[in-house]
Parts: sequence; C-alpha cells; structure tokens
Amino acid sequence: MNYATQMEAARKGIITREMETVARKEMVDPAKLRELIAEGRVVIPANKNHASLDPCGIGQGLRTKINVNLGVSRDCCNIGMELEKARLAIELKADAIMDLSCYGRTEEFRRRLIEMSPAAVGTVPVYDAVGFYGKELKEISAEEFLGVVEKHAQDGVDFMTIHAGINRETAARFKKNPRLTNIVSRGGSLLFAWMELNGRENPFYEYFDELLEICRKYDVTISLGDACRPGSVKDATDASQIQELIVLGELTKRAWEKDVQVMIEGPGHMPLNEIIPNMLLEKKLCHGAPFYVLGPLVTDVAPGYDHITSAIGGAIAAASGADFLCYVTPAEHLRLPTLEDMKEGIIASRIAAHAADIAKGVPGARQWDDKMSEARRNLDWQKMFELALDPEKARRYRAESQPESEDTCTMCGKMCAVRNMNRVLSGAGPDG
Amino acid sequence: MNYATQMEAARKGIITREMETVARKEMVDPAKLRELIAEGRVVIPANKNHASLDPCGIGQGLRTKINVNLGVSRDCCNIGMELEKARLAIELKADAIMDLSCYGRTEEFRRRLIEMSPAAVGTVPVYDAVGFYGKELKEISAEEFLGVVEKHAQDGVDFMTIHAGINRETAARFKKNPRLTNIVSRGGSLLFAWMELNGRENPFYEYFDELLEICRKYDVTISLGDACRPGSVKDATDASQIQELIVLGELTKRAWEKDVQVMIEGPGHMPLNEIIPNMLLEKKLCHGAPFYVLGPLVTDVAPGYDHITSAIGGAIAAASGADFLCYVTPAEHLRLPTLEDMKEGIIASRIAAHAADIAKGVPGARQWDDKMSEARRNLDWQKMFELALDPEKARRYRAESQPESEDTCTMCGKMCAVRNMNRVLSGAGPDG
Repeated sequence: MNYATQMEAARKGIITREMETVARKEMVDPAKLRELIAEGRVVIPANKNHASLDPCGIGQGLRTKINVNLGVSRDCCNIGMELEKARLAIELKADAIMDLSCYGRTEEFRRRLIEMSPAAVGTVPVYDAVGFYGKELKEISAEEFLGVVEKHAQDGVDFMTIHAGINRETAARFKKNPRLTNIVSRGGSLLFAWMELNGRENPFYEYFDELLEICRKYDVTISLGDACRPGSVKDATDASQIQELIVLGELTKRAWEKDVQVMIEGPGHMPLNEIIPNMLLEKKLCHGAPFYVLGPLVTDVAPGYDHITSAIGGAIAAASGADFLCYVTPAEHLRLPTLEDMKEGIIASRIAAHAADIAKGVPGARQWDDKMSEARRNLDWQKMFELALDPEKARRYRAESQPESEDTCTMCGKMCAVRNMNRVLSGAGPDG
Repeated sequence: MNYATQMEAARKGIITREMETVARKEMVDPAKLRELIAEGRVVIPANKNHASLDPCGIGQGLRTKINVNLGVSRDCCNIGMELEKARLAIELKADAIMDLSCYGRTEEFRRRLIEMSPAAVGTVPVYDAVGFYGKELKEISAEEFLGVVEKHAQDGVDFMTIHAGINRETAARFKKNPRLTNIVSRGGSLLFAWMELNGRENPFYEYFDELLEICRKYDVTISLGDACRPGSVKDATDASQIQELIVLGELTKRAWEKDVQVMIEGPGHMPLNEIIPNMLLEKKLCHGAPFYVLGPLVTDVAPGYDHITSAIGGAIAAASGADFLCYVTPAEHLRLPTLEDMKEGIIASRIAAHAADIAKGVPGARQWDDKMSEARRNLDWQKMFELALDPEKARRYRAESQPESEDTCTMCGKMCAVRNMNRVLSGAGPDG
C-alpha cells in the first residue's frame, strides 16, 4: 500500500477500495469523490485496524450522516447493555457510533465494539485518560494524553474528538468575554481545567504535530472538538466560539499538510436564525472541512424533548452545510438515555438528515418520499408501512384504531380526501 | 358599539377591549397593534357571541400561536372524550382549538366547546354540512352551505376555514397540471367534488359577498382554506398551489373592503428549502395577511413522527413569516390522535413556535431560555423543572436515573462540564 491515509491516496490520484464503496453507496462518480477527499471536503473515517468497517463518507455532496453516542460510565458500567445499544444503533442505520466510555473496562468495551461494528467508531481519548492511568487529571502528562490516542488508534478507532482549539489564546478570550453557561463540552472543560491547574498550554495544541503522526499512521480522522460550543442560545456565535473556530481552521491546514483527514465539531445551543450564518462561518474559516454538529438545539427550555429541538436545528444546519449530525435523545440534560430514548433520538436525527438531503438534492433522497406518496395516493397501506422510516410504529398506530372503511383511517373516515379524489377523478361520486 | 368588527374599529381609530388585552399579553404598544389590525396584518378572532373568550392576536410582531384540532366523527363520536381533549389543549396552552366535527351531535359539542373555551374556536363549516342537512353532498345548495356558516357564527365560532380559493379557475389549473397526491385537503376535496358533480362554481366563491355579510355581522375571522396545499413534497410550490394563493389574495382584499378579518391557510408537505420562499409568496400575494400553516412537513416518509417533521417545517416557517401553526400529532396519516398523541403534538408545536419567536425577537421570548440556562449553570434542578416546557416529563426522566453525585446527572456524572467549570472558575480542582 503506497499511501498512509485516504487523503494521501486521493492526492496521489489513487481511488481506494473505500472510495469505490462510498461512491457506489452514494451514487456519485468515484473520480469526483477522490477529488473531494484530496481537497479535504469529504472524509472517509477508516482506521486500518478496523477490519469489520463498511466505509462511509462524510462531507460535501454526500448523504447527511448521523452518529450515536454510547459507552460505559460510572453510572452505567454494564458492557453487555452498551453492546446492545450498539446493535440497536446499527439496526436503526446509524452511520457512526461514538464510544464515550470514561470508567471501568473501557478497553474491553472499545475492542468488542470495533470488532462488531460496520459503522465507523469514534472516541474522545481525553474521557478515557483519567481512568486509563488511574491518576488525577492534573497529574496526567502531555505524553500520556498522546499515549491514550495511540492506544485507541491501535485498537482501530476511526475518528477521535481532539479538543486542540481550546488553547491559551482561546481560554484567554473566554475569560475576557463572560458567558452565561461557560464551557459545556465535557472534554473541553477537562482540558481547560488541566491548563488552569498546570499553567501550561493545551497538550493537544502544543504537541499537535506528534498527534498528527499517530493519526497519519493509522489513518485516524481527527474530529476537532469545539470546547466552546454554546451551552445556551444566549452564548451562541460569541467571541469564544468563533475564536476557537479560527484556531480549528488553522489546525485543519496543518493536518492536511500531513494528509490527515479532518472534521470540525460544532454547536450546540443556537437561535434558529443564527444557524445558516454559522454553517457559512465554518465552511469559510475551516476551508470546506466537513462539519459535524451536536444539534443545534434551537431552544433551552425543552428538556425531555431535545430530540425535537435538535432535529429542528439539525435539519436547517444540514440543509445549509453541516454534513454529520450527532444524535440527541429525549434524555439530554436529564440522564443517560435508555434504549427507547436512543431509538427516539436516532429517528429524529434521521428525519433531520433526510429532510436536509431532500433540500440539498442529494442523489436518491426524494425518490423515497415520492414512493411513499404514491402509496398514499393509492391507499396502499402495506406499501406505506414498508416504506415508513419506522414500519413498526406506523403499523401499530393504525392497528390500534380500526376505521369504518378499510381503505381509509380514522382521522377522516369516509371523508378521506384521497379516497374522494380518487373516486371523483375516476368519474364516481365522492362516497361509495 | 359603533363598529362591527375589530378591523372596522381599528380603522376608525378605536382601541377595543380585545386589543388592549392582546397588547398587554404581547407587551406591544396598543396604538401600534391597532394599526396592524387596520392594515390586516394582525387579526383578533373574537366572535361577539363567544362570551368566555380570552382574546388572542395572530400576526406580525406577535408571539407565534398554535392550534389544536379535535371534534366528533363517525369513528370517534364521544362528546365527553372530545371535551376532555379540549381541556387538555387549554391546559397545555393551545391558543386556538378547531372543532372539526363531521358526524353526530356536532351542534351540541360545538356549543359546549365554545361555552368552556377561553381559546379561540374555529370550525370548517363544510365538514358539518353533510350531517347537518342529512343530504348527499351533491344535493346541498349554495344557500344551505351559507346557512351552516350562519349557524356556526351564531353559536360563537371565532374563525372558520372557507375553501373559496378552489374555484373553477383553480380547479382547471389543477386538472391541467397533474399532481402526485391530487387534493389532500378534506374540505377542498369536498368542494371540488361538489363542483364536479354539479358543474357549478364553488358556492363560497360565487357567494363570497353574502359570506362576508355573515362574517361581518358576528366578527368571524375568515381563514381562507388552501384546498391545493401539497400532500407530498413533490407537489409543493406547484401551479395549483400558487394559483389558489393568487385567488386567496384577491379574496383577502374583498374581505378587507367589508372590514372582515382574514387569515390565509398554507402548506402542507414541503421540502425544507422551499419554506422561506413560500412565506414570502404568501405575504406578497396576500398583502401581509397572517399566515396559518399546517406543518409544513419536510418529508413524507415518517408516519408516526409527523409531530417532528412538522416541528422542523413549522419552526422555519414561523421564523420567516408564518404567524400561526396548526399542530400535527404522531398519529397524522395513521389514525385519530389519542390524548397522549395530542400532548406530543402540542409540545412539538410549542417548541417550533418558541424557537421561531427567539429567532424573530418576539418581546420576552428569549428571556425564558436565559432563565433556564442560568438554572442549568447553577445546577439548580428544581428551577430547571419549574421552567421546563413539560415539568412532569423532565422530573420523571431525572428521577428514573439517580446519579452518583446529587448535583449532576447520569449523562456525565462527576465529569459534568458545568460542575467542573463552576469549581475551576471558583479556584477549586475539577473533582470534589
């Protein structure tokens, strides 16, 4: 193999097996895809050690992808349960799974997840660092942080969130411009704390070149974390957020010099009218790198329904530049999600992603809707169920309420507009 | 009383009791509100016979309102159950209730609903016509259709959907430009059928002046129905839809000549990227009249989740011109909603409306979010629950999963970014 990463291959004019797979799935021209990867506008997170991977592309012109978070933690350290969540995520067509494990047998879980997952697997090494070394955060050295990255890379992790943008400069900007909700990124807050406690530069920023060597070696895609993603609509698009984005744009260029693939992580809580400008900002400041957003959540007041607040923001974001949506469940801001919450979150994210794909004309997207609407016009209920995003729920809902006329539903009964129109347009009366 | 309608009063320079109430609730200047009502940009649906009404304004510069549908039908003809739905709607802060009754003791239900409802009550008289006269649709005369309108007006209905835009011209345009899902508006399909069966002009269009006399007499706000609202994303923004909108704009001017208040009803299923242009089209073609939308649903493929597909579309619509959102429940396209479905639908609509209100800077909107985020930063769980859109669900979710540290939640436990930041910024270590 005469290339280290998908990006290097693309730049050398090589269309890899992974590119061919992605091009086929996305119905795009492999040569065009190769070009977008060479330019950094598309990534294929594909660690050389992730044998079970079914490669998936993220970025310009491709279907919007969704990510599911899970992992073992102090409050939920059952490996079997987390693997069950992973199976559900794959069954419900998640494109990627982030293992946010931070406590317990994280290594065992990570390896088993990678072994079974055709979806790309991501991690946040800083979460794992405290447990891995059994030390206080303050005591972990820069070399040790990089050691965790290398460990995850060896295990086959396809992409890693690296909060390298919260450097001294960004931290100073944050202190100078107070926010309502400070830093709400878990990894970001840990690195900020580490810097404050040690009076030193962010290790991922200081040793970014060393980090790039590891990522290049295994072809790990860096997902540049946004420590300063707004935690409230009030904090959106503020000095800290944009300062960090500028730094992430600079780091993106440095990664690309080493042929390392990069995504940028983004907000967060954000008023609806600020989403489109933020997509432009990311694409400009980060030179077209794929944008991976958490939400955006368009209001702060709906705990229990943040799968909906984020579906609204995510759909708008993806229609105007975001390429990858991190799912948000109804449990956000309240507790770890259950399997049922996960399902709700995945479906809501898939709706947002698909709505965006229709809007941006992704090949094949609207055909699904057209088939569904044809089935609706024909009152072909079996076909409607088969085509539904969630066939089980659609079937169950209809079964719970039997209509008087078999071809209609109880919403309108014999007044069903579809039925009446079919009759009238075929020359019969409205009611048979 | 020297005026017939709120619009006439406004044009005569009178600030009515209803205007004062609305101005106070909306934190806007009564004189400015009067001006907007005189121009037709705001309506206050307030039938003179609706004694229990707490008046509510709909239109430019005001909080986005939401409507809940219910009513007795062949498949659900229990008056008690429908009144219970009305109570739930009011408890969950619906701004208006549409009684879509079409079978059984519709008159009794309508009267009881109006008697108990502080929210504005709307109806679709054409639904009631068949049952009221006990005749086949074809046999109902134009005079009889108007008779139902007068009956509803006497009973105190505040606004009525009148499908006057599906006239011969619009029907011809529809036949000339085939659609995937034809006409999916229930009332629209009935009027189209009536016209086809009788070979006559739409009675509401032909006798629009007579209709206006009734509406003027009781101050019924006309909600001009969109028979050609798209029933699939493919049919959105097509010739039929826009043709009808042009006619609705002409009818709006005729209504305003008689001081009759008007809203315009809108889509429907619609790709996300077509929503903003459609809001502009309505505001231009209908001269700034308030826009009342059903959805828009941004994809056809998610039966069981159309409260989410419509929350996405509704938020974008309301942020860019729509003034009034009709709720959509998870039961849409499948069956009549249960009480639980209704709640889901109302909450989703309220999220969409509030997200839009933040975006368009409606007075007081973002303060709610700021208070919530302040409580979050302070890890003040009681305050968070009190401020939540649905306090019960938020409390229940957290209670179901007790965290190790009382001030955090099980999502991050001791790694809680908010907790760590509060500690670090106050000079302590990240973990206590």
